[in-house]
Amino acid sequence: MTFSESDKNFMLRALELARAAKGRTFPNPAVGAVVVTAEGKAAGEGATGVYGGPHAEKNALKKAGAAARGGTLYVTLEPCSHFGRTPPCTDEIIKAGIKKVVTAVKDPNPLVGGKGMRQLKSHGIIVESGLLKNEAVIINEDFFWSITQKRPWITLKLAMTLDGRVADDQNASRWITSAQSRRFVQELRRCHSAIAVGKNTLLHDNPRLTARCGKTYFPARIVFSSDTDIPQDSYFFTNSHETRSIVVLRDSGNVKRISSKDNLEFWYTASLNYSESINAFLDMAYAESITSIFIEGGQRLASSFLEHGFVNKVHLFYGNKIFGKGKESLLFSRGLPVSNCLNLEKINHRSLGEDFLVSGYVKQLMYK
Amino acid sequence: MTFSESDKNFMLRALELARAAKGRTFPNPAVGAVVVTAEGKAAGEGATGVYGGPHAEKNALKKAGAAARGGTLYVTLEPCSHFGRTPPCTDEIIKAGIKKVVTAVKDPNPLVGGKGMRQLKSHGIIVESGLLKNEAVIINEDFFWSITQKRPWITLKLAMTLDGRVADDQNASRWITSAQSRRFVQELRRCHSAIAVGKNTLLHDNPRLTARCGKTYFPARIVFSSDTDIPQDSYFFTNSHETRSIVVLRDSGNVKRISSKDNLEFWYTASLNYSESINAFLDMAYAESITSIFIEGGQRLASSFLEHGFVNKVHLFYGNKIFGKGKESLLFSRGLPVSNCLNLEKINHRSLGEDFLVSGYVKQLMYK
Repeated sequence: MTFSESDKNFMLRALELARAAKGRTFPNPAVGAVVVTAEGKAAGEGATGVYGGPHAEKNALKKAGAAARGGTLYVTLEPCSHFGRTPPCTDEIIKAGIKKVVTAVKDPNPLVGGKGMRQLKSHGIIVESGLLKNEAVIINEDFFWSITQKRPWITLKLAMTLDGRVADDQNASRWITSAQSRRFVQELRRCHSAIAVGKNTLLHDNPRLTARCGKTYFPARIVFSSDTDIPQDSYFFTNSHETRSIVVLRDSGNVKRISSKDNLEFWYTASLNYSESINAFLDMAYAESITSIFIEGGQRLASSFLEHGFVNKVHLFYGNKIFGKGKESLLFSRGLPVSNCLNLEKINHRSLGEDFLVSGYVKQLMYK
Repeated sequence: MTFSESDKNFMLRALELARAAKGRTFPNPAVGAVVVTAEGKAAGEGATGVYGGPHAEKNALKKAGAAARGGTLYVTLEPCSHFGRTPPCTDEIIKAGIKKVVTAVKDPNPLVGGKGMRQLKSHGIIVESGLLKNEAVIINEDFFWSITQKRPWITLKLAMTLDGRVADDQNASRWITSAQSRRFVQELRRCHSAIAVGKNTLLHDNPRLTARCGKTYFPARIVFSSDTDIPQDSYFFTNSHETRSIVVLRDSGNVKRISSKDNLEFWYTASLNYSESINAFLDMAYAESITSIFIEGGQRLASSFLEHGFVNKVHLFYGNKIFGKGKESLLFSRGLPVSNCLNLEKINHRSLGEDFLVSGYVKQLMYK
């Protein structure tokens, strides 16, 4: 399939709309759509609304109104053809008289992928797909992962010194990175359906775990703890009304259960073994509509997830600081040899003022 | 002083020549010079030769020959006016009939700084200085430091994983960084008058400590050791004929002395206290014409120099690897608190393929 420069530009705009919507559509993917008239003029734009609200296609078609007739719809993901919380988008497209649909990528859900396009074709609509596919996949890489693997996408973030410390030898870590880096972390948080820390981090740092991006959406907050004793003066505890707040416990009991107390959910993973416990937690989280988790440490939580192969993507922030001694960023139970250690795929470097950020995918897990 | 675009371009070329000469002029600074005719045409270029050879000015004037008469000389450092291993450059300039001299920076040696310019002026030559001064200082920052402080300039290089390890938990470190980074390290070595490692690094890595940059110059090699027992199969030992090879020992004796055995020099610093011992070593090194040292680890040597405030500049290489456990890049005897830790000045980030390099100056020591 070859696409024109004009096709590309409209799709780039649709991708922009999708990116902007990221973080308020969970567990739906963030999608962007642009309606272009038969004369080649943009007539309406739209993005996915909050969960339960209209999809991108419907929003764009509504803006375009009668101008959509005979026109082209650019959309970053294959339109849905089934009833969910909203009616099928394919129906809306057919009704609006759209002549051609250009999509970036097929729906990754094996139950519905391809159906939308087939339905449109059966109504005589020209369907072209694959335009800027990679860009579209990246925006919803967590969605693509979770729907095919049936577990949440895991992003690990660490903020460390140049000598690889996440806290000084008094356990202080505020702040290792600059305000600019921390603002960027807010952006990253916003793009996940939950944020997780270990109980030690709660005790030492008392983080707010908020994504300051307007009041439309708060990611859920998760604390991994060895007991149910959550400090009552922690932000996590005192502000549990703001968003879903979950305490995850490893427990030797056989029953995994979800109970609620003080506005908190308590999840028991039914295993003392780290790897098994994380596995059980991920199953529970997916069942509870948590499709992506942003893990912010501390050392133990980060190391457990990474060592046991549960991390999809990492963001490593390095502040302009040297402690010389203190808490190591990661501490696996078994070190990896230089000849066979972890490498990041698609590694990316980015300067954030005096800080720098290394991002990449963990090899064995990277979404293909 | 204002300079024309043409002035700037000729000085940029002189700086380029100086940079290329870096590493083969010790203990002299690396200087570049360009002679321009009265008509504004480049007539001759030169750079400092190996120690004892002619200076940049003489080389450039020789190339220009009679064309220098009435012309301008661009030179990155104030011309010398005293007899050293070679006759004063000012005499050569006057003899050649140069009308104007443009320099980047004054000689930092307090005994001679300014004398060269005064002598030229007294012969009716126009002297302008300060053009691209910062660039000129950086090329010879080690020289500027050592001549004013009477001790060698210290550069610390560390090659670590993304989680801040310099070796895996079996002490293996070959290779943490990529071939591209290691080539760049060769370049950095070349620009120092000596390369130093600790004895453990010699035992584990057996590094060659060579700067592969032609056969004109080998930096001296230094090993810090707790005893005189240097492994006889180490490259350091077996190739000690290639260049000056020094073993530095902390020793409780009162006399610092230099003795020679097996083609190696043995230096005793006469103190078991780290800080005192390093101080004594730096005095000895400067007295022995070592004006800059490139420290490559291991952990103990690097940490001692950095913790005690002896490091001027650092180059931290991060390879695309995660060990999860292993030797920490730095381990001070006392950790620094987040509120008052080391920061790098003029920090610079650079991608080297998948690796990342952070360079900067250690605050309290930076050359002003």
